[in-house]
Amino acid sequence: MNSMLKESKTLSNALLKPKSVALVGISDDISKTAGRPLHFLRNAGYKGTIYCINPRRETVQGEKAYPSLSDLPEVPDHVYVLTNADLALQAVEECGKLGVPVVTLIASGFSESGHEGIEREDKLRELKAKYQTRILGPSSLGIVNLYEDLFLTANAAFAEPGLPKGNIFCASHSGSMIGSLTSRGRNHHTGFYGLVSVGGEVDLSVGEICLATLDNPDIHGYMLFLESMRHADKLREFAVKAAELNRPVVVFKLGRSQVAADLAVSHTGSMAGEDAVAEAFFKDCGIARVETLDGFLNAIPLLSKVAPQAANQKKINVGVLTTTGGGAAMVVDQLGIRNVSVASPSEDTIAKLNARGVDVHAGGIIDLTLAGTKYEVMKAALEVLEDAPEFDLVLVASGSSARYHPDLAVKPIVDSIATYKKPLVSFLVPDAPEALKQLKQAGVPAFQSPEACADVINAAFARRKPMPIPTKFIQKDLPTTVTLDEDCAYKLLQPLGIQNAPYQVVSIHDSVESLTIEYPVVVKVLHDQISHKTEVGGVILSVKTATELKDAIAQIKQNVEQHCPDLTVEKVLVQSMVKGLGEVLVGFKRDKDIGPIVMLAAGGILTELYKDSAMRLAPVTLESAYEMIAEVKGLKALDGFRGKPKGDLKAVAETVVAFSQLALSEEYYIEEAEMNPLIVNLQGQGVTAVDALVHIAKEG
Amino acid sequence: MNSMLKESKTLSNALLKPKSVALVGISDDISKTAGRPLHFLRNAGYKGTIYCINPRRETVQGEKAYPSLSDLPEVPDHVYVLTNADLALQAVEECGKLGVPVVTLIASGFSESGHEGIEREDKLRELKAKYQTRILGPSSLGIVNLYEDLFLTANAAFAEPGLPKGNIFCASHSGSMIGSLTSRGRNHHTGFYGLVSVGGEVDLSVGEICLATLDNPDIHGYMLFLESMRHADKLREFAVKAAELNRPVVVFKLGRSQVAADLAVSHTGSMAGEDAVAEAFFKDCGIARVETLDGFLNAIPLLSKVAPQAANQKKINVGVLTTTGGGAAMVVDQLGIRNVSVASPSEDTIAKLNARGVDVHAGGIIDLTLAGTKYEVMKAALEVLEDAPEFDLVLVASGSSARYHPDLAVKPIVDSIATYKKPLVSFLVPDAPEALKQLKQAGVPAFQSPEACADVINAAFARRKPMPIPTKFIQKDLPTTVTLDEDCAYKLLQPLGIQNAPYQVVSIHDSVESLTIEYPVVVKVLHDQISHKTEVGGVILSVKTATELKDAIAQIKQNVEQHCPDLTVEKVLVQSMVKGLGEVLVGFKRDKDIGPIVMLAAGGILTELYKDSAMRLAPVTLESAYEMIAEVKGLKALDGFRGKPKGDLKAVAETVVAFSQLALSEEYYIEEAEMNPLIVNLQGQGVTAVDALVHIAKEG
Repeated sequence: MNSMLKESKTLSNALLKPKSVALVGISDDISKTAGRPLHFLRNAGYKGTIYCINPRRETVQGEKAYPSLSDLPEVPDHVYVLTNADLALQAVEECGKLGVPVVTLIASGFSESGHEGIEREDKLRELKAKYQTRILGPSSLGIVNLYEDLFLTANAAFAEPGLPKGNIFCASHSGSMIGSLTSRGRNHHTGFYGLVSVGGEVDLSVGEICLATLDNPDIHGYMLFLESMRHADKLREFAVKAAELNRPVVVFKLGRSQVAADLAVSHTGSMAGEDAVAEAFFKDCGIARVETLDGFLNAIPLLSKVAPQAANQKKINVGVLTTTGGGAAMVVDQLGIRNVSVASPSEDTIAKLNARGVDVHAGGIIDLTLAGTKYEVMKAALEVLEDAPEFDLVLVASGSSARYHPDLAVKPIVDSIATYKKPLVSFLVPDAPEALKQLKQAGVPAFQSPEACADVINAAFARRKPMPIPTKFIQKDLPTTVTLDEDCAYKLLQPLGIQNAPYQVVSIHDSVESLTIEYPVVVKVLHDQISHKTEVGGVILSVKTATELKDAIAQIKQNVEQHCPDLTVEKVLVQSMVKGLGEVLVGFKRDKDIGPIVMLAAGGILTELYKDSAMRLAPVTLESAYEMIAEVKGLKALDGFRGKPKGDLKAVAETVVAFSQLALSEEYYIEEAEMNPLIVNLQGQGVTAVDALVHIAKEG
Repeated sequence: MNSMLKESKTLSNALLKPKSVALVGISDDISKTAGRPLHFLRNAGYKGTIYCINPRRETVQGEKAYPSLSDLPEVPDHVYVLTNADLALQAVEECGKLGVPVVTLIASGFSESGHEGIEREDKLRELKAKYQTRILGPSSLGIVNLYEDLFLTANAAFAEPGLPKGNIFCASHSGSMIGSLTSRGRNHHTGFYGLVSVGGEVDLSVGEICLATLDNPDIHGYMLFLESMRHADKLREFAVKAAELNRPVVVFKLGRSQVAADLAVSHTGSMAGEDAVAEAFFKDCGIARVETLDGFLNAIPLLSKVAPQAANQKKINVGVLTTTGGGAAMVVDQLGIRNVSVASPSEDTIAKLNARGVDVHAGGIIDLTLAGTKYEVMKAALEVLEDAPEFDLVLVASGSSARYHPDLAVKPIVDSIATYKKPLVSFLVPDAPEALKQLKQAGVPAFQSPEACADVINAAFARRKPMPIPTKFIQKDLPTTVTLDEDCAYKLLQPLGIQNAPYQVVSIHDSVESLTIEYPVVVKVLHDQISHKTEVGGVILSVKTATELKDAIAQIKQNVEQHCPDLTVEKVLVQSMVKGLGEVLVGFKRDKDIGPIVMLAAGGILTELYKDSAMRLAPVTLESAYEMIAEVKGLKALDGFRGKPKGDLKAVAETVVAFSQLALSEEYYIEEAEMNPLIVNLQGQGVTAVDALVHIAKEG
């Protein structure tokens, strides 16, 4: 075993299968937070050794208490520190000295708590750098492995006996959620292998913890409850490897709305980051994202049955079979809102159903009505739909019979699931706990909420094969940012194959007679300290003659120097006026958490008014670029909308791909770049940048 | 008692408090649909008289069977016909002859079932016209009154004992949903006064049935599950009266997505109607619309505490109090998506909290952390927030303590609700059935799903005071539609105060020298059979001289007559070229179900690409018109966006109000009208129509 593998194994064992744990600051009072972990571990029957550390007591909850970690007869695999923040720092130092593999901290009072907290966090980072000991937390409510009876947590939910075991591992930024998900999971027959509250992620992050669990064959899928995108590099590494092992990963991420993202600043001390960036990240990492809590709790069974799709894949069609039209229509509606297509049965399928004695008519939903509450009818219908090529997934919505006669209503689904050739999903219209139990135990993706059902079907089909992690690019923080002027920006972009409108740099001292590009032209101030040229009067359009050009240059010099008294205008850029069919914005940016991203947006004010844009991790493939084009609604106007001519969307896609290569540049470390607008010409005539802005970062 | 009131009373009693019911076609086999109602009525202990009608048997389920309705010793109050469609028609005729107040039909096989079905429905309508008997159905699964033990239904859910009683009346197009809502309601502690499956609404509609129940003081709120907008006039009448009685009405309407609306055609035989029209209808009727099923089941308690808002009302702010940041953030996120604002506590509020010993810091969510799981802490916090002017509603998100210690976590809410000065809402983050029960029994609006919680808060604040029903306008079907040419359309709109760009009608034989409006002008073909002038080459822009005008007229005549060989061009309309700051579309239409509506949309292709429009029932008030402007995202571009000049949005609002008066015109019966575009000038300079289209309907 090489050392990295060994380290991972040690980490994995210390987290989920420790042979011994020590509880620092454990309280004698089981009703107190600091008294719970011992109570829970004993209650659950944890078979490893438990050491209690409490310098002020001889015994705790009837067990021997040691004065300090150093007094223990062995180095424990995992230390859970239940003290306040200051004492926790001392405990971490002690763990480091002793060579404890993992120490978990429950204390808050670090970076989220003002000046003193930041000092404590700095100290914690120092300890992390100084010792081999890995740190879980701060603000971690602990970790649970239901198969090892390891209830190393202070979350009150784990006092409950008989929590359902399963094959899902859940990692959560929120400590309270590991309890809520466990109690909610019980009703949904969603059982966990284990759960971890990662807290402030000063060291171990969601991604790294999950990575460490990939050697565990009892974990079949992952649920991630995220409040931020910190340590996205580790998360990506984990997601790509999980996909290789066919283990689905579903995420519920807070901060979908801007108000929530803003609030998150005060709530967790970490800015949630713009949600669209996270969305792009999940897509390119092959992580399914759901938007409903019930969907989150019920996603894994369906994700296990729907392989991740290639980018720009054909539209998926759902077939809906029901005994209750109104109930089924609720899901259809929710699918429609999410742009998931519900297909009608073909004539051939209807004929086959009729031949099997199933009385249905043409139409969208296959409504068996009350006649469908017979085992044979439902089973026959399922068999016909299994082979119907028009459906990629079959959804069965069961009515009241599911509550009163699960043997008629859902047994046919239970009996079909093991060998069914396509994904099969159940939606229960009434409250039907016994039917739900039978379905879940058979492994059927089953839902009690129409919103969650549609949410998960959508998330499953929207999941993409992960993009390979580029080996070349690095994410770094460089102290100095330099802005290139428009001329330099074009020159940096040209080697990528990006066309710009012809231009000439003219010194204000030059004779304008020497201009080689044709009139009319646009004249723009050229200065690396002026990014927003229009706002300082630095742009004059439709200049038609040499005389006008001379006047324009003088005017621009005057305008700009009036707006910016510290600058001197020495040069302008004179460029051909280009008028295409429309325009787009193509942008590139390094997000501090997730790295380089590329954005395509509708041009002009549409982006802002309608938030009409698509984003991906850079670099992107051509297929992804086409998918981005399809996501930007405003680009329909350039695709032959209402009989208008078509724009060169192929060139747009190729340009997005080219631009996204900025992520890999070895020559420059580009922080941000934008072509706004990029003119889209008629089909076959390409695209033309008529403005470009590049910020590069340099060593200080 | 006048005769209308008496009729309503008779209807109300026959529906929900019949002294006697007859079951036509009742089966001896209680497992069959046609056997269920007798079994359910007896099982529930219905105290009225039950008559069984079955010509083929002496007894049914051990009770005497009569051969026909005519053989009964009395005329029953309510007859439920359980036969097939053809026999059902006979039964309706018999009911009519006997003077039965209400007959309910379970049979399908009417208008949704092709040619034969349509014939049957015609026959049913004849019977409805011929007799006084009111018809419920066809395809009605019946009606239930839990207080009268009236389980006059074939829905299997009503075999269940101990269904929770409450004060909500539910009317549903879907028959299966009355059962599913009842079983789901049990888990949510949502009890019903009664439920009705209205089926095909050949006579009694959702609106009329609910109207009839308004005399019942035991009904405090209404839940409507709608698949279509048929009989919207009755629904509106009901909604307005319900609002006068302070009885909230919540609707869950299918067909939110277009695909669902299209599917609804085949599924119920009724087109669901464009959803945006329904949305406008609900808003102007003061009906709260929810989008989640759990929200639907849990809306009434909050709606009972939030008064309907005036149009264009100030923004509402929610204050969030929690012991679990991550859990609360789920609701905040969902509120944010719905544009409901979450406010931060003021410094004053924080100081007051601290003074009461509640340790909180500045920030959006008021997170008490684990310290908040004490009765006194939570109660003190609730008391401070009750008087904090920055919050219009207080939301408490409770963590795991709600599951294990409801006395600590939710008792403070239960103890506060009766006298709390503002709406107070509970969200339970874990599964916490006992806490939910205590909250619901105390009347606290309480939620187990973050999506439903935000959905209902949003719906409550989005609910408007109903608009008065205009007395003047009538909705009718007239056989002949006439299109006005642009000149006539302007003349029809001018009396409403709508400005158009100056124009002159020019005969192709006239001398163009006589033109009195200034160049440049636009020239447009003028013909009442040409609505889309551009598509036939009938528009020429930027005509600058008399010579150009002459040529333009000749060119238009040639173009149009080439496109439309049957037409002769005799006239053109010559109009000033107007260039304002932007443009909008204002439209008017009579929807076949809900009547006249007015639409405001972003101009050009934005409407289509982004579906960026707002709709209201016509006529609209100025406040509603301003609210419409705020709903159209694209209009931000005309409101000083990014330092650009402001457009005359006041004139836009006034024009929408004026245009909506078309609904009331006594001179013309206007079916459809549109100004596209209406040019928006600079603030203070008004708006100018540069095209107008009017379709009026006439007696044949």
